[in-house]
Amino acid sequence: MERARARKPRIKEERVTSAHGAGGKASQTLTEALFLEELRNPHLEKLEDGAELTLGDSRLALTTDSFVVSPLFFPGGDIGELAVNGTVNDLAVSGARPLYLSAGFIIEEGFPVSELRRVVRSMSQAAERAGVRVVTGDTKVVQKGRADGCYINTTGVGVRETVHELGIDTVRPGDAVLVSGPVGDHGVTVMLERGELDIDADLESDTAPLHDMVAGLLAATPGVRAMRDATRGGVATILNEVATAANVSVVVEEGEVPVRTEVRGASELLGIDPLYVACEGRMVAVVDGESVDTALAALREHPDGAEAAVIGRIGEDPPGLVMLNTAFGGTRIVDLLVGDPLPRIC
Amino acid sequence: MERARARKPRIKEERVTSAHGAGGKASQTLTEALFLEELRNPHLEKLEDGAELTLGDSRLALTTDSFVVSPLFFPGGDIGELAVNGTVNDLAVSGARPLYLSAGFIIEEGFPVSELRRVVRSMSQAAERAGVRVVTGDTKVVQKGRADGCYINTTGVGVRETVHELGIDTVRPGDAVLVSGPVGDHGVTVMLERGELDIDADLESDTAPLHDMVAGLLAATPGVRAMRDATRGGVATILNEVATAANVSVVVEEGEVPVRTEVRGASELLGIDPLYVACEGRMVAVVDGESVDTALAALREHPDGAEAAVIGRIGEDPPGLVMLNTAFGGTRIVDLLVGDPLPRIC
Repeated sequence: MERARARKPRIKEERVTSAHGAGGKASQTLTEALFLEELRNPHLEKLEDGAELTLGDSRLALTTDSFVVSPLFFPGGDIGELAVNGTVNDLAVSGARPLYLSAGFIIEEGFPVSELRRVVRSMSQAAERAGVRVVTGDTKVVQKGRADGCYINTTGVGVRETVHELGIDTVRPGDAVLVSGPVGDHGVTVMLERGELDIDADLESDTAPLHDMVAGLLAATPGVRAMRDATRGGVATILNEVATAANVSVVVEEGEVPVRTEVRGASELLGIDPLYVACEGRMVAVVDGESVDTALAALREHPDGAEAAVIGRIGEDPPGLVMLNTAFGGTRIVDLLVGDPLPRIC
Repeated sequence: MERARARKPRIKEERVTSAHGAGGKASQTLTEALFLEELRNPHLEKLEDGAELTLGDSRLALTTDSFVVSPLFFPGGDIGELAVNGTVNDLAVSGARPLYLSAGFIIEEGFPVSELRRVVRSMSQAAERAGVRVVTGDTKVVQKGRADGCYINTTGVGVRETVHELGIDTVRPGDAVLVSGPVGDHGVTVMLERGELDIDADLESDTAPLHDMVAGLLAATPGVRAMRDATRGGVATILNEVATAANVSVVVEEGEVPVRTEVRGASELLGIDPLYVACEGRMVAVVDGESVDTALAALREHPDGAEAAVIGRIGEDPPGLVMLNTAFGGTRIVDLLVGDPLPRIC
């Protein structure tokens, strides 16, 4: 079984749709057929979440993310905390120590100053927790109806000090796939807060900085191949990226994936697999087969990793595909997300 | 004459207004009383357009800007070119060589893919002209009516190689103030393109990268105290920042300020002094008194600086104020902008 990867991606739509921002198939096509096509350079070509830059004797990482989550405040966090943790995590999983952030605000006229203060205070607390500083910023205001409260871009600079050569293209058959905790809490929490599902559940966003857990994992074993934080598109999207980049298969055991009962229930109502639901404080790590126990122990040693689990393994066939062994004994393909079932969750 | 600077700024408004994004008084209060108050750290305290960071042996500059200009396309440029040049210029005038940019897009659902491509292609050309690379990016899509076509954040990393110690707080009485060309072209061009003024004028945005002209100026003379690109709030806002930071007076000769006839005419209709109108490819430089001729020659040597001029000088009294000697022989105070006469021009 082979997938036609050689064909140059083409954007079929004439207009940008919600799916182009969802992290799945349409996002990938937009990135490759438009952004990469027009801006092509060796840094961008890697299509990693961040770029690695060499400056003098330093190896820097640079990563950017805009946050448009709705609502701005939700159980367990808010857009400010998300904006700090999201960028901290992109740096951390690339193997960089997060150091500095910029913050760009686009604010809708009429937005309460008290809410803005609450958001910025939350950023400040998140920055302190993650050991980073917000060192520069910008504020733009647009008319009512030209934004939605406030949007935040954070761009992060980190320094790569590890000797680990990380990258999803280094993944090999025989490797193991781990997640650092239950998946989908963030995405479902936001959906519930919007009132789009007629259920009550005692659930909180998992938003958290991953830098500390990453440091622990890297210190414990040289067998780490790649790490990713599972945001838009969830764990399934990351595993698809791994399968494609390394030209391997990924086989996931559904029964091993930690999912809270509330998340499972809400996902069923939404008709979506929890594997596609965004987390904001969970990572996927691929480690070589011999390092599984050490890696799992290192993750579990961290308070946020107590429920870490080995959820799958890397195989040879079929290359480029993610297969799920279901709890009922079947097997199905876990493809990239089509459409945007969970808009604006980050 | 003394101004009450010691009083802690306080935000009087309960809701964010257009003026909070205009670069004038309200912007300054929001920055100091909210962003700085909540996020305070030594880097942010300088309230410069960018932060200076030390990493290993390198001195880096980091700066961020979001672009929300309306319309997206205007004579002489578009939001993509603006987004590259704006951040390149913030780096350049801080004395850093611009190297890398991130690009974060917030796109309104329904935005034509062809227009997005046009914007990104324009970014690519601007990046090439400025010698920088867009190395990482992010795309978010929001529902119709939650943005306005597309907004772009660019964050830039540069390296400081100059030995010049630049900063508006180093400005001294006896220094001279220069501008690199006619002021206000960009702001008026955008206003005309919106059709908000019932006049026709053959005018183009001055959007351009300043890195080359800055390098020429710094190479020509060690007497450069400070440089700023004159964007939101125009030249007047920068001069007020200089007056306050260095506790000096700035005396501007109205007759020496280069202003195109079309810009002067449109400004009159708008009831605004061209000194407040945004440029996107002009800089203000303050140099010591002995370096005036060298500095002016260096600016004029650059194609974009052919109309550079010495527009004023730094004095002692009244400290903290910008005074304008008008063409008619009078003198008036040029204060910080109140309100937002030119919304969304960058």
